[in-house]
This record gives sequence, C-alpha cells and structure tokens, in this order.
Amino acid sequence: MTAIYLDNAAGTRVHEDVFAAMKPWLTTRYGNPSSIHTFGIEARRAVEEAREKTAALIGAKPEEIVFTSCGSEANTLAVQGAVLSSSARGRHIVISAVEHLSVVKAARTLERAGAEVTVIGADSRGFVDPDAVADAVRDDTALVSIIHASNEIGTIEPVAEIAAVIRDRGVPLHTDAIQTAGTIPLTVNELGVDLLSLAGNMFYGPMGSAALYVRKGTKLASLVQGGVQERGRRAGTENVPAIVGLGVAAELAARDMVERAERMTPLRDRLMTGIEERIPHVIISGDRTRRLPGNVHTAVHAVEGESMVYRLAGRGIMAASGSSCADKTLKGSQVLAAIGVEPALINASVLFTLGIDTTTEDIDTVLDELPPIVEKLRAMSPLWDG
Amino acid sequence: MTAIYLDNAAGTRVHEDVFAAMKPWLTTRYGNPSSIHTFGIEARRAVEEAREKTAALIGAKPEEIVFTSCGSEANTLAVQGAVLSSSARGRHIVISAVEHLSVVKAARTLERAGAEVTVIGADSRGFVDPDAVADAVRDDTALVSIIHASNEIGTIEPVAEIAAVIRDRGVPLHTDAIQTAGTIPLTVNELGVDLLSLAGNMFYGPMGSAALYVRKGTKLASLVQGGVQERGRRAGTENVPAIVGLGVAAELAARDMVERAERMTPLRDRLMTGIEERIPHVIISGDRTRRLPGNVHTAVHAVEGESMVYRLAGRGIMAASGSSCADKTLKGSQVLAAIGVEPALINASVLFTLGIDTTTEDIDTVLDELPPIVEKLRAMSPLWDG
Repeated sequence: MTAIYLDNAAGTRVHEDVFAAMKPWLTTRYGNPSSIHTFGIEARRAVEEAREKTAALIGAKPEEIVFTSCGSEANTLAVQGAVLSSSARGRHIVISAVEHLSVVKAARTLERAGAEVTVIGADSRGFVDPDAVADAVRDDTALVSIIHASNEIGTIEPVAEIAAVIRDRGVPLHTDAIQTAGTIPLTVNELGVDLLSLAGNMFYGPMGSAALYVRKGTKLASLVQGGVQERGRRAGTENVPAIVGLGVAAELAARDMVERAERMTPLRDRLMTGIEERIPHVIISGDRTRRLPGNVHTAVHAVEGESMVYRLAGRGIMAASGSSCADKTLKGSQVLAAIGVEPALINASVLFTLGIDTTTEDIDTVLDELPPIVEKLRAMSPLWDG
Repeated sequence: MTAIYLDNAAGTRVHEDVFAAMKPWLTTRYGNPSSIHTFGIEARRAVEEAREKTAALIGAKPEEIVFTSCGSEANTLAVQGAVLSSSARGRHIVISAVEHLSVVKAARTLERAGAEVTVIGADSRGFVDPDAVADAVRDDTALVSIIHASNEIGTIEPVAEIAAVIRDRGVPLHTDAIQTAGTIPLTVNELGVDLLSLAGNMFYGPMGSAALYVRKGTKLASLVQGGVQERGRRAGTENVPAIVGLGVAAELAARDMVERAERMTPLRDRLMTGIEERIPHVIISGDRTRRLPGNVHTAVHAVEGESMVYRLAGRGIMAASGSSCADKTLKGSQVLAAIGVEPALINASVLFTLGIDTTTEDIDTVLDELPPIVEKLRAMSPLWDG
C-alpha cells in the first residue's frame, strides 16, 4: 500500500546522517559526560560539539543553549523558569491565544499559584497584533510568550515586531519556535527574543531532543532538579545520543532548510489550491503566505476530522485532525476557536504537514483520494445539506 | 590500552538487544503515539508494550508507570508532584541525609516556596532508622522520600521496614530506586511504596529512559506541562525509541538480574578485600553485605580522589570520584558527610561500580595498578606521614 506521511508537525523521520551519528553513542560509547575518564570526556566533547551546532542554527552562543528532553519541557522551563526566577517584577504573564498547550498550561499552573495571565487574541488569519501585546505589558509583567508559528494553523507570527514594541519595557520575551527553528531561517537577534524553544524531532532529529535558548543574563529557575548539568539550568544526565542527533540535525537544517522550504512551499500551495478546487465548502485556516512551508490546515464542512483521518489512513495517507498535544478533554482546538472558526468546523479539521520526502505525486494522490472520502462521509452526515 | 569500565553507577552500556529493538524506531518507524494513523498506532503499541515490561519488572500495573526523560526528572516529579498536589495534608516533607541531589533539591525548592523539610540522618554504614522516619512524620506531612540504595556508598536502605512503620499514617512514600530497579529483585508491594523512580541507563537501557511508578490513587501534579500524554502526568511527545529500549532492558533485567548479581557480588568483594589488603589506611564506606552488588566505595587517606581517577584513567581504568550528579559548588559529598566520614577523607573518595562485563581479570588488573598510583600520590601529598 502507498505510505504517504503528511504528519510531520507531529514529528519527522530521523535523517539517516542523524542516525549514523547517534549510533556509536547507543553502542560502544556510553560514557556519562560528567565522568572525568576517557569515556566521559569523549561524551562531554560530543555534547559540546552538538551545543555549538544547535547554537549556530539560531545565531546563539553555545553557552546559551540548554538541552531538554522535548519541546514541551523547553516551553514549560521557559515559562515557569522565567516567572519563578522573577522576584522583582511580579508575576504577570502575557501569552497569545494561539500558543501550544505546553505554554498555556505552564502559565495556568502559575496562575493557580498566584500569577496573573493575560491572553492576547489573534485575528482571523491567526496573527497576534504587536500593539496589543505592548498594551498588555505592565510594570509587574514577568514574561511575554508568543509562539513563532502555530503547529495547527501554520501562521508565522510577527515576533520581531513584538520584540521591537516591548523592547524598552525590560520584560523577557519567549518564543515557542518548535515549528520554525530548523525549518525556516531565523536568529535570536533578528527575532529579538530572550528565550526560544526548539525541538529536533521537528527537523529530522530524534525524539527526546530539544533545547531552550536562554539569552545571556536572562534569569531562569530550573524545572528538573538535581546535579549541575547544563550550568545548573537542567539537571539529569545528558541524553548524549539524542543531543548528538540534535546537533547533526541542526547542522543539516542550517545547510539545507532554505532549499527544503523552496521545494516544499509549491507543494503546500498545490495541495491548498487543489483541495479548494476539488472540494466544495472547505476552508483553509491561517495566512496563505506567511505560513509554515509544509502546513495545510483544512476544515471540511459536515465532515468529522478524525473520521477523515481514519479513512485517509486506510488509503495509506497519514495526516492529523489537530495538534498531537491536544487535550482530548477539551472541546476541540482552542487555537481554532481563538481565530473565530465556527464550532461546527473546529472538529472538521484535517491537518496535512509536508516533509522533505513529500513529492508532487504524493500531493496528487491525496487530491485524488480526498473527494470520494469527503463525499462518502458527507453522505452519512446529518450536518450535510449539499 | 586496557579499557576497564568501572563507572556503571554513572551509566551502563546499552545492551545489544536493547539497541536492536530501538533501531527501527530511529529509522523507519517514526510515528507519534498520539497520531491515529498507521505509524502512530504502531508507535502507541510499542510504548504500551514497553510500559507492560517496565511495570512487570517492579510488580506494578502498566497504568501506574509514567515515562520520564531521566532519573532526576522522575525524582523531581515524585517529590514536587506529590507535595504540590497535596492540598489537604500540608507541606511537610521527610527525606533522608543520603538522598540523591535531585530529591534534595526538589525538596529544597519546595522549602523556598513555604514547605518544611525534615532530614533524617544515617548511621556510619549509611542506614536510615525506620523509627526515626516514623517519629518525623506529622499530621501535615505530604511525602516521605527515602532512597532505596545510595549511588555513592551502595548501602541498601530498609525501605520495606520504613513503609511498615508509617503505613497507618496515610503519607505517600517515595523511593528513589534508580540504583536498584533492574539490578536487584524488588516489587512495589514488597517495598510498600506509593512512588518509585527507576532509570533504564542503570540497567543496560539507553540514556533518556526512565520512569516513575505511581500507585493507583496517589495524587501527582505534573512537572512538564502540555498535552495529556502519560494520562496527563507527563506532557510531551513520548520518546518512543528510548521507551522501547527501557522496555527491553526491563525484560532482560527481569530475566537475568539474579544471575548478574550472583556473578558481580564475589567480584565486588574481591575488589573490596583486595584493596584493604594491598593499601594501608583505606576505608570502604557503606555496609559490607547489604550493599549494591556492583558498588565499591573507597576513601584512601592522603590521596585526592579526582587525582586518583585521572591516574587510573591513564591506565585504562574508568572509575569515579563520587556521584556524577554531584554539585561541584558544594564542598564534597553530603552523603559521606552524613555518615560521618571525616572531611579529609571525603575528597579522597574513589568509587568503582562493576557491571555485567566485569571480569576477575579486570578486578585483578585494578588491584595491580592501584598500589603504585597510591604510593606515587601519597609521596606528593603534604597530608601523608606514612
């Protein structure tokens, strides 16, 4: 059967060069980087080399990189670490309505402990208004956290503009760049951020590989407690194979991401316009151009998203009905609700996320398979009156 | 050159069967377990199979296992998660003086936020007295956390006895079993614990693989925030290859650990008595028999531990001068201070931790190499008057 993987926002494959680099660290080279003997020293060198490569990807200094076990940990560490270390500034937090659940929940956890959270809305294309962020900042604001690009709707936020309008307020700015770092060119200085989360498994590195950039001078309370690994900002023995994998993935991304995006963007657009041409009553969420190169977020009227994903899977096409970190106890996506998608369409979401292996043939296969599935599901739907 | 690895408490090698099981999940099978298509479903199955194997190792139910990224995360989650979810019982915490730094720091972080911490001392062999623990428990105690065996001195604590004397107090009991789970047989019911931390890289699983056992009914606030992975107790995309590796390592350990320990224990004793016979003015810390099968903790009068480890490394012998999670900003090991080791000897520590590959020849090589190194270092030491 065909196997067309269009769920890269949930995680990419591991690049063969990444796996090759990791392999020795999962077999013959198993030292703990804190050990001072031969095996330990070679592990330490490998970790520091990966730190340099990860830093280089985002224009940071190696000592500003804190390795974490996943993107959600990086986001939690950023939000809670910045706020809990900010005794002077108080406990007010500004986030947007299109944040990943890890940022939302980290902020809400602090709220239950006495912090105050202001949520900035987004327009119908998913954009957060920089002036609205600036207006929300108060003297007691401890952190502003605005996602760089939504893993759901793909809209790329004006983070640099937000940084510019709040610069003189002295509030640390975090951006969740898990969907953008390694996918589109960016640097921490161009973005003007103090904290930035990234995850290797979004750009062909392994699961379990992620990092938080922490600008020199930015205070951060640690989340995982224990030893003084990562300069005391993240305890626990370093996951050497994952970190090595992240380093190589970062190096490959730095070299190839422009070319990858240039190849992916027309395929994305082919899929978007193809869906619109072939299927009546469908919406594409997010901005058409300021969006992730691989993201196509659709909502198909009168079709339940999960049902569509199951049927597509039956035809060998792997997509998603929303964020893989969605909270199934919530009624649909908060991000879609925030941009004004009508409730009936929120659960009609199907998310295709392209990767470096996606071909024109894959896209055309999807465009061939979709209409009959939609037709069949609509025929069974009480909501369909077409 | 010889390569004799005697630093297994800092991390073991990855067993070849473990690596073989992980490999597909780092190459061809890269689905996110939250995805509902083919790749996602196979990843979900792999995670749940590993959960069953991990649970079986410690006599738990699969749904009581929460996968984490490392032992320190499991310990932090246990301590902070139990205390922060315990609104009714107040915020008093009982720990011992021989805990791993992750438990100590997690408790101290809570202390700065208003909790109260009672530290129970240990005797000269490192034992914590169950009655002293029972006496320390108060009506507002939210958690008792006692390590199962110290990664430094190797003494195995009477956790089951502690559980017995506090059982009727209704306080959750956590044990850091990172050095024992997968190394010596244990079950959560025999130990009588509500929370138990374990780490795969202590028993031939990969780095980045660890778990917290959470007895059904035990409340736990999550540490890493975000999606509802791990039943809402640990957010973030599951590290599938690491989890699969942990499962296989647990399965191998369940099958082989008694045999492994039976092979290792006489080698440990050969090293302990050999060191005492060959080197004057040396102490072996911890209990002689109720100790980890691979642990030999020595302190050599008038010899700086790190210097000895460096010199041993120069001869191809890899050991440690203490915990790999030690806080270098502290003056020596708090565990050794707690059991009454005199300050001059604390920095004279050398820790040998044996593994499944250790041979009689390895031990005899160490016993041959040690005396001339000690002699040389003592000749240079102002502390030596022998």
